Amino acid sequence: MADKLIIFDTTLRDGEQSPGASMTKDEKIRIAKQLERLKVDVIEAGFAAASPGDFDSIKTIAGIIKDSTICSLSRANDRDISRAAEALAAAERKRIHTFIATSALHMEKKLRMTPDQVFEQAKLAVRFARKFTDDVEFSTEDGSRSDIDFLCKVIEAVIAEGATTINIPDTVGYGVPELYGHLIKTLRERVPNSDKAVWSVHCHNDLGMAVANSLAGVYIGGARQVECTINGLGERAGNTALEEVVMAMRTRKDHFKLDLNIDTSQIVAASKLVSQITGFAVQPNKAVVGANAFAHASGIHQDGVLKARDTYEIMRAEDVGWTANKIVLGKLSGRNAFKQRLEELGIELESETEVNAAFARFKELADRKAEIFDEDIIALVSDEQQSHDNEYYRFVSLSQHSETGERPAAKVVFTMDGKELMCKGEGNGPVDATVNAIEAEAKSGSELLLFSVNAITTGTQSQGEVTMRLSKAGRIVNGVGADPDIVVASAKAYLSALNKLHSKTEKLNPQL
Amino acid sequence: MADKLIIFDTTLRDGEQSPGASMTKDEKIRIAKQLERLKVDVIEAGFAAASPGDFDSIKTIAGIIKDSTICSLSRANDRDISRAAEALAAAERKRIHTFIATSALHMEKKLRMTPDQVFEQAKLAVRFARKFTDDVEFSTEDGSRSDIDFLCKVIEAVIAEGATTINIPDTVGYGVPELYGHLIKTLRERVPNSDKAVWSVHCHNDLGMAVANSLAGVYIGGARQVECTINGLGERAGNTALEEVVMAMRTRKDHFKLDLNIDTSQIVAASKLVSQITGFAVQPNKAVVGANAFAHASGIHQDGVLKARDTYEIMRAEDVGWTANKIVLGKLSGRNAFKQRLEELGIELESETEVNAAFARFKELADRKAEIFDEDIIALVSDEQQSHDNEYYRFVSLSQHSETGERPAAKVVFTMDGKELMCKGEGNGPVDATVNAIEAEAKSGSELLLFSVNAITTGTQSQGEVTMRLSKAGRIVNGVGADPDIVVASAKAYLSALNKLHSKTEKLNPQL
Repeated sequence: MADKLIIFDTTLRDGEQSPGASMTKDEKIRIAKQLERLKVDVIEAGFAAASPGDFDSIKTIAGIIKDSTICSLSRANDRDISRAAEALAAAERKRIHTFIATSALHMEKKLRMTPDQVFEQAKLAVRFARKFTDDVEFSTEDGSRSDIDFLCKVIEAVIAEGATTINIPDTVGYGVPELYGHLIKTLRERVPNSDKAVWSVHCHNDLGMAVANSLAGVYIGGARQVECTINGLGERAGNTALEEVVMAMRTRKDHFKLDLNIDTSQIVAASKLVSQITGFAVQPNKAVVGANAFAHASGIHQDGVLKARDTYEIMRAEDVGWTANKIVLGKLSGRNAFKQRLEELGIELESETEVNAAFARFKELADRKAEIFDEDIIALVSDEQQSHDNEYYRFVSLSQHSETGERPAAKVVFTMDGKELMCKGEGNGPVDATVNAIEAEAKSGSELLLFSVNAITTGTQSQGEVTMRLSKAGRIVNGVGADPDIVVASAKAYLSALNKLHSKTEKLNPQL
Repeated sequence: MADKLIIFDTTLRDGEQSPGASMTKDEKIRIAKQLERLKVDVIEAGFAAASPGDFDSIKTIAGIIKDSTICSLSRANDRDISRAAEALAAAERKRIHTFIATSALHMEKKLRMTPDQVFEQAKLAVRFARKFTDDVEFSTEDGSRSDIDFLCKVIEAVIAEGATTINIPDTVGYGVPELYGHLIKTLRERVPNSDKAVWSVHCHNDLGMAVANSLAGVYIGGARQVECTINGLGERAGNTALEEVVMAMRTRKDHFKLDLNIDTSQIVAASKLVSQITGFAVQPNKAVVGANAFAHASGIHQDGVLKARDTYEIMRAEDVGWTANKIVLGKLSGRNAFKQRLEELGIELESETEVNAAFARFKELADRKAEIFDEDIIALVSDEQQSHDNEYYRFVSLSQHSETGERPAAKVVFTMDGKELMCKGEGNGPVDATVNAIEAEAKSGSELLLFSVNAITTGTQSQGEVTMRLSKAGRIVNGVGADPDIVVASAKAYLSALNKLHSKTEKLNPQL
C-alpha cells in the first residue's frame, strides 16, 4: 500500500454498459489481452450474474490472462457472488467485487431497503465472498452522496468481515476535487480499521472532472487504487480515462510520488482497439489519445512548433505509443510475413484455418490497396473475427451508383442464416440505398441512431471504418465495418449491427 | 468582483489555433452571434496583428456584437496593441489583452530576453494599451511554470500601470488542481495591489484536468474569470470546455456560490455550430454536449433508466438545450415559413438574394429528403455560406459507381476560377475515386490527413457531413461538406478544403 497506485480497469464492465458499446466474447478477450500487455493490475471482466454471455466471457478471460488479477462484479447477494466465484474459478489471481447503494436516495428509491437492512446485507455479502477468495472489494454505490456516519459504519463492518479494498464511487459524477478528496481523507481517518484495506476511487465524468476527482482521492484522500476505462468509455459522459490518470501520475510524479506498473507505450494501441471494437470515436482534442493531442502526430511540420517542442510538450508522443504509420506489408508479402506481423501486433488467431482466412482477406485487400499499414491489418482481423462470431447475416457483394439528378440505387447480396439473398434499394444517397436494400429482405425494423465514418490511416487510399448504431425495442447496438469502399463498409457495419440485434441477450446494468 | 464569475470565450482565438480549425470571417461572425446569445461576458474575437484576415474579422465582430465585450489579443508591443485598438474601435465595450512569457524556459528559449527586459516591456505594453481603453487584460504566458517572485513583481507593476484583469495561463496543461489553485491564492495574497484587478484562469487539457484546474483557480484561488472554448476546442488536447465549467458551476452552486450570466439553453446549439464549422467532432461520451451525455438524448427508452432518472441525472438535458429532433419543414413549405424558421434559429442572411439562394437549395433538398430538421437547415445555410465565401472551386455535379470485383470510378464536374471542368478518376472506393478525379484537374498535391463522416440527424435519410483535413507545405485546413449522398458530401468537403488552401493566409499563432 506504500507508494504504488493500483490501476483497476473496468472497460469490460462499466465501459461496456455504455449504450451501444456491448461486445462479443471474442472482442472482450482481445481487449483483455491488450489490458494485460498494458500491465493493468486488475481487470474487471464483467458482471457474472448479468447474463450467461457475461459469465462465459469472464470464465474465458479468467483462463487466459495470467499477469492481471481478474475481477467480477456482483450485487450483495449469495447468488451473484456464487456466480462470480464460479466464473473466476480458473483465474490465477481473482477478485470478487460486491456493492450496495448507501445513499438515502438510492436505498429508498431503488433498493427499497432501510439503512439497517443495507448494513446487514453488506456484511453478509463480504463474509460470503471471502469463502471463495481473500481478495474482496466492496463498493458503496452513490458513495459521494451518502451520509458520512452511515458510510463509516458500513465500511468498518465490511473491513471487519474481510473486505480488502474499499471503493467509494462518485456514481453520478457530482464530485468536485477538493470535496471528493476530503471525503476519502475523512473516511480513512474516521474508520478505525481503515488501514486494513486499500482505498479506491471510481469517478464519472458528468461535470468533466472524473480524472481530477480521482487524483484528489489519491493525493488528498490517500486512495491507492483508481478505477478507470480506456478512452473514458462509459455511460453518459463516461468514466475516468485510464490514459489521463496514468499520464498525469507519470508527468507530475514530482507531486504525486507514486509508482505505477503500467507500460505506457501500449496506451495508444489500447485506445484504438477499444474505439474500433465499440465504434466510440475519440475526438481529435482528447487528451493523450486524441489525433491532435501531440503536435507531431497530427501531421504538423511547421518550423516553429518543432523548434519549440520542448517548450510546449510536457509528454513525448512516443511514450504513449504514438508512432508514424508504417507501411508494413504489400501485395507481394507472403503468408509467413503476414503471420509474423500478426504476432508482433499481439494478435493471436486460434487456428491455422483462421490464419488462412485472414491471409486470404489480406491478399484481397492488397490487390485493392497498395500500402498496407498495421491499422489495416488490425481492421481486417477485427472484421474477420466479427463475422466469425456472429454469422446470421453475412456480406457477399454490392453494386451501387449515384449521379446528380438521379435517385441513388444499390444492389446488395448477403446471406441470412446461410441463405444467399439479392436485393435492391433506392435512397437519398448510396448508403441509404444500401440500407434500404438490406432492409427489403432483413425487415429488422430498427432505427438508425448514429452513423459515422473514420479513415483508418491517413491518405485517400485509406480504408473507411463505418459505425452504425441501431436501436430496436429499447436495445441499442453498434455495428462496425471496414473497407476501402465506404459504401461496402456501411453495408458490413449494418449487417454487423443486425447480427448483434439478432443475438438477443438480456443483461443487468448495475450503476456504480 | 463580488460573487459573479466572468466567462471569457476564446473559441475564435485560441480555439481557432487548433490545426485545421481555421475559420472564415463569416463563420466567425456566426459563432460570435451564438456566443452573444449564450450571454458570454467577453468574446476574444482574434489576434488583430496575426493577419489582415484576423484584423478584419475582429473589426466586423466589434461592429455587430452589442451585449458582450469584444477582445483582441496582442503581444506586448506598440504595433500589436495599435492594431488591436484599431480593430476594436467600433466596439461598445472593448478589451485589449496583452501578454508576455514569464517562465525562465520561455523567456530564454523563445523570447531571448532577460527577466528585466520582460518586466519593462510588460509595463510599457499595459501603459500603452490603457491609452485606448480602460479595460486591459495582461497574461503571463507559461505562468504556471514561472518563478513566483518574478510573477509577483511583474503583476504588481502591470496593475499599477492600469491592467484590470490578470490572467495566469497554464499554457502547457501541466497544472494539478490543488497546486494551480494555491498558485492563484498565493499570488493574490502576495501582490500588494491584487484587489485592483480581476484574476483570471486559462487552462489547457493535456492531462485531462483543464476544467478542474480552472475551478480550483476560482474556488481555492479566488479567480473571477475563466477563459474557455466551446467543446474545449484548442491546440493539442484543447482548452477548458466552456460547457463543463458552466454546468459544474450551476450544478454545484451549493459549493461554488457564484453567479453566471450564461444562458445554458444555448449550449448545445453553440456546440453543434462550432463542431459543424470546424469539422472537429464531439465524442459521444463527452460531458454535457456528447450524444450520450444524457440518457434520453441518446435514444434510450428503457424503463429502468426512465424510472431512475432522478436517481442518476444531476442535470436536465433540456437545461443545456438538448431537444428531440423536430420535423420542421417539408416539401410543401413556402418561402415565408423557411425564412421564419431561419429567424427562429438565429440565422441572419445578409440580403434577400441570399435568402432566395438558400430557399432554392432548401427546395432541392426537400425533393430528395422527406423530413427536414433544424440541423438540415443549419447545414444547408452553412454550406451555402461556405461556397459563397470562397468561390475559387465550386461543386457542380457528380456520378460514381462501385461494384464488388470492379475498380470504383467517379466523374466530377466542378468549376475552378469560374471555368467548368469535367474529370474522371478511379480509386479504392468511390470517395478515393472522386478525390482522384478532382485532383486530376486541381493538382493541389495536398495530403489527406483525416476523413470523417457524421450523420446530421438520426435515421438513414439523414444528410452526411463530411470533414476532410488536408495538409500542404505545413498548412493544415479542414473542409466540410454536407449532402444526403456521402460521396457528393465528400466532393464538396474536398473542394471546400482546396478553397481554404487557395486563400493563402499567413498568421501568427501565439501560445497562451
